[in-house]
Amino acid sequence: MSDAPAVPFYVKAMAAVGRMAKHVTAEPWPAPKRDNRNPAMTGEQDDGSKAVVEAEGIKGGGQRALLASRPTGEIKDSDFKIVEEECPELGPGEVLIKNIYISLDPTHRLWASDQPQYMACVGINNCMRASIVGKVMKSNSRKWKEGTICGGMGGVQEYFVAKEASIYPVIPGVPLPLNLSLFNVVIGLTAWVGVNICEPKAGQTIVVSGAAGAVGSVAAQLAKARGMKVVGLAGSESKCTWLKDELKLDGVINYKTEELDVGLARCCPDGVDAYFDNVGGKTLETMLTKMNRFGRIAYCGHISGYNSESAAVSVNQFQMILMRRLKIQGFICVDHMDEMVKCFAELLDLYVRGKMKVQEDIQETKVSNYVQCVNMLYTGKNSGKLMMKVSEE
Amino acid sequence: MSDAPAVPFYVKAMAAVGRMAKHVTAEPWPAPKRDNRNPAMTGEQDDGSKAVVEAEGIKGGGQRALLASRPTGEIKDSDFKIVEEECPELGPGEVLIKNIYISLDPTHRLWASDQPQYMACVGINNCMRASIVGKVMKSNSRKWKEGTICGGMGGVQEYFVAKEASIYPVIPGVPLPLNLSLFNVVIGLTAWVGVNICEPKAGQTIVVSGAAGAVGSVAAQLAKARGMKVVGLAGSESKCTWLKDELKLDGVINYKTEELDVGLARCCPDGVDAYFDNVGGKTLETMLTKMNRFGRIAYCGHISGYNSESAAVSVNQFQMILMRRLKIQGFICVDHMDEMVKCFAELLDLYVRGKMKVQEDIQETKVSNYVQCVNMLYTGKNSGKLMMKVSEE
Repeated sequence: MSDAPAVPFYVKAMAAVGRMAKHVTAEPWPAPKRDNRNPAMTGEQDDGSKAVVEAEGIKGGGQRALLASRPTGEIKDSDFKIVEEECPELGPGEVLIKNIYISLDPTHRLWASDQPQYMACVGINNCMRASIVGKVMKSNSRKWKEGTICGGMGGVQEYFVAKEASIYPVIPGVPLPLNLSLFNVVIGLTAWVGVNICEPKAGQTIVVSGAAGAVGSVAAQLAKARGMKVVGLAGSESKCTWLKDELKLDGVINYKTEELDVGLARCCPDGVDAYFDNVGGKTLETMLTKMNRFGRIAYCGHISGYNSESAAVSVNQFQMILMRRLKIQGFICVDHMDEMVKCFAELLDLYVRGKMKVQEDIQETKVSNYVQCVNMLYTGKNSGKLMMKVSEE
Repeated sequence: MSDAPAVPFYVKAMAAVGRMAKHVTAEPWPAPKRDNRNPAMTGEQDDGSKAVVEAEGIKGGGQRALLASRPTGEIKDSDFKIVEEECPELGPGEVLIKNIYISLDPTHRLWASDQPQYMACVGINNCMRASIVGKVMKSNSRKWKEGTICGGMGGVQEYFVAKEASIYPVIPGVPLPLNLSLFNVVIGLTAWVGVNICEPKAGQTIVVSGAAGAVGSVAAQLAKARGMKVVGLAGSESKCTWLKDELKLDGVINYKTEELDVGLARCCPDGVDAYFDNVGGKTLETMLTKMNRFGRIAYCGHISGYNSESAAVSVNQFQMILMRRLKIQGFICVDHMDEMVKCFAELLDLYVRGKMKVQEDIQETKVSNYVQCVNMLYTGKNSGKLMMKVSEE
């Protein structure tokens, strides 16, 4: 990180984080942490058999990817309709944003489905939901000046019409994509909360699945910074090389060329105390049998199951939770918005000191190639945080 | 509880609890909490595919139930061999105990199997493991006088030859069976630790499975004492009546005559915040879909799976742990021996004030009827804490 910004950059950056925290609203995220009622009762989700659909779609124009039908299995071109539309007139307090980077995340598969989920799913014929970084082109808001760079839930489209309260400033002094690949609640905060759930203890061993992925790589480096022995799972030699040579993980297992239990025996002579799980499936089942007593599992995704036809995910070896007295906890970043400042401060510090490296897979392409790009996530073809670049910075 | 002992009884009782805490040793229990290493590495258990067998069987004499073969499916008469044996000579520090009450617990099925489990399983041709309350008949120990009543892991047999450090005093001033049905780490401490894992919050709703069972009924009353709304699941009208009329639970569901989801809709208008699970299986799967956000599940057993031929337990609806941000934690009382005094003090207090009622199912019978008796647990035929009375008090 020879090109890391100088330390005074902190001042500006943390000021931006502070403003960001003020701007991040509950919309379209679910109600805050305090409301623990069953989503069936808040009307925001049903009783576990089918998701509630978003009340309102994301507004915008230009080339747009609209959800045409709920994907079954893998996402297909026919699940989206690419349209060219005029932007609607700006209402009071609204802002027109030209999207630059569009974030592609595993949760897209979930948002497009009507499986019961942690927030309302995308409505049919609405613009596909996605985080973006973009530039304010026109503003009906005193809070946002033309030319400002901002972030928000801007959708898979060229232009995003946002309410002033639903967008937030980016961190100055860092490359723009870093606002999606690290200083992004879906990435940085998810990794940070998950590592906390893993109760990091110096000298203990943590295994991180999808370790070369956007969330996994941040989690792995955070755990290392907290003094843990970190073993990463990844699905290609190049990913494993990056984890070993760049991130300096203590152990790396290519699960495509080595049986997981053989790799664990090789890399974890003292067993496994914590597991950062973002893949679920067979990997989780094997990990359950390999955990040390009083192990902790942070569970933030099951990408391996997102393309299955049934919403219900079955996990074997469940009895090990009892036999080894494990804690397993599901979590989603949006419940921890109040910890964002603390989290981003730690990430900034590690980043400046060269201890938080990020790999980005930036596809310079058009909105119309959304399906082809997003599917890279589910086949493991991306290298690092996947995003589309749909216009110049 | 008009016949509850007077308050001064506390002094003696708590003194006994203190002595009890000093006497409860790690044997035959697994290594204490601090040792979190994978059992595969401590040699005490294997890597999750097969359990380690106890190093030494329980010594004793008279009529004895020896494990003849590992049960497959339901426990059968042929899985045990009933023998009549002379007691071995007492070694230095050893004590001869005449068993009075023999505790029958769901974990017996696990101990008899060679499924991977939380402690060594019983060896073939060894006496079946069980907690007992009995009387010291002969003593080679300065610590134990003849005629003293004590508790210990005395096995399914008439006479138990114990090491002086492996037995403990009973609580004076309470009926003897209460030392198995309440002031017993397997019962009282299990319920107490599980309720703590459920993070009881006044006004929130907890569901307790097996609520008329030994552990469940204590957990239900503890949760009620901590201010929760308690809904109990049980499998017969008489159990449900007891839960409603005697324990005054806020809601009761007979899962044999009412669909669980219908019962939950009826009894839990504000959803379910915590679930004390000691049955696992389909009940757990349904509960997973009914939990409120940030719900807690304490998982101390899966009796529904103990008789299955495969050790591996598969649980569906696992994705709900993520969607509702649930915590699920496996636990076993023996990891919490250091909390026994605190736990028993709370149980004593509730008991004296009539807020902790216990139902006992005492089968006056012979050791040779062990199989018939223990199977009552798996068919739900017992009413309350099941034990055999094999000699007079």
